[in-house]
Amino acid sequence: MSGKLIGVGVGPGDPELLTLKALRTLREADVIAHFAKAGRASNARAIVAEHLAPGTVELPLLFPVTTEIPKHEPAYCQAIDRFYDGCAATIADHLERGRQVAVICEGDPLFYGSYMHLHTRLSGRYRTEIIPGVSAMSGCWSAVGAPIAQGDDVFVVLPATLSEQELERRFADADAAVVMKIGRHLEKVRRALGRSGRLSRAIYVERGTTTEAVTMPLEMKRDDIAPYFSVVLVPGWQERS
Amino acid sequence: MSGKLIGVGVGPGDPELLTLKALRTLREADVIAHFAKAGRASNARAIVAEHLAPGTVELPLLFPVTTEIPKHEPAYCQAIDRFYDGCAATIADHLERGRQVAVICEGDPLFYGSYMHLHTRLSGRYRTEIIPGVSAMSGCWSAVGAPIAQGDDVFVVLPATLSEQELERRFADADAAVVMKIGRHLEKVRRALGRSGRLSRAIYVERGTTTEAVTMPLEMKRDDIAPYFSVVLVPGWQERS
Repeated sequence: MSGKLIGVGVGPGDPELLTLKALRTLREADVIAHFAKAGRASNARAIVAEHLAPGTVELPLLFPVTTEIPKHEPAYCQAIDRFYDGCAATIADHLERGRQVAVICEGDPLFYGSYMHLHTRLSGRYRTEIIPGVSAMSGCWSAVGAPIAQGDDVFVVLPATLSEQELERRFADADAAVVMKIGRHLEKVRRALGRSGRLSRAIYVERGTTTEAVTMPLEMKRDDIAPYFSVVLVPGWQERS
Repeated sequence: MSGKLIGVGVGPGDPELLTLKALRTLREADVIAHFAKAGRASNARAIVAEHLAPGTVELPLLFPVTTEIPKHEPAYCQAIDRFYDGCAATIADHLERGRQVAVICEGDPLFYGSYMHLHTRLSGRYRTEIIPGVSAMSGCWSAVGAPIAQGDDVFVVLPATLSEQELERRFADADAAVVMKIGRHLEKVRRALGRSGRLSRAIYVERGTTTEAVTMPLEMKRDDIAPYFSVVLVPGWQERS
């Protein structure tokens, strides 16, 4: 009998935001797989490190490229597709031997996560289970204590890569918003927030649920320097409460 | 020294989806408060029931009305405002005595949760902490194993109360969507999905992370009968993967 592929959400960063189910799964799994950039430690692994028993079989899945090649270039897509195919083949080999393979994922496995590339490649052939996790964005608005959406609010998640015009239109069209993966896009995001009348509500959050979290009203941030994993929150509900 | 108000997310329903931090907080809190409709058991309390030590001091916060009065009538707003004011006063009394009051919340406290009505009333005067939880929607797409959003997807959460035209427009304008609080709105939601070309992707989920979960492609659902806490998922990423 073949094994089971398990996508395990380990939450936004604070090791205590692991669920009881994720913890049990880590203890029961035969193999624990985690994504990382080649040469870097896995963030998901760091979150669960204290719970990994000695002798745990680990399977690091090391991205061959991340930001060196622009995402829409064929070379990037090819390299990434080959990488996921290879990961899926390695995991399939474990599954064929009846092993439970837990792929640990920051945040929630099926919400903007790399795990889903494995899931779509393997879920047709093998048993799968998803253990949802606390999302990175929940970690961020909780760190700030900002009620994000309520009642009949329309809430939207936007990638910072959208054009300024698109961002402006979508901010104006939603009650509440989260802009993800800010990185080098902060100046543009700031302008779009200003033009849609949302700048005064916007909150900048860097390294949401770590002890080095930096949060401030975006209007107070003096520069446009932001790491890739920073977000901007635009709480909706406060306007009408 | 006054106490602390803690909003504790207890996840979407499965007691194992409680985080380690939520569990520790429940054990350390002096008072555990939970919302429920008068005469009904609290869903949040049911999720954590097995972890409540004998002798735990509980503070049930019982809604005087829920769906008996339409939400936009002044009588509803007045009754609800008076209710939250009363809850805040009772909790403030505990906080003044230096107690830690944990308000347990299904899902995530600041994402469409009742807790935020207490937070806004008390966070100016007392220390507060938010413990994020796995959201109900994460529980739902994980139960189904449906990768919901990826890469540069625009993801939107829509209340089912929107008009058919608004739903149609917003479905067409997003890559991925979750429609919450379906209840008596399923027929309308179905039509809007059809008109925006999203019906074939839509998944109906009832009681997401309970053992009685019902999930099916919406096109397979033969009637338009749905409980209030059912959702419709429209995964985005699968189209382009």
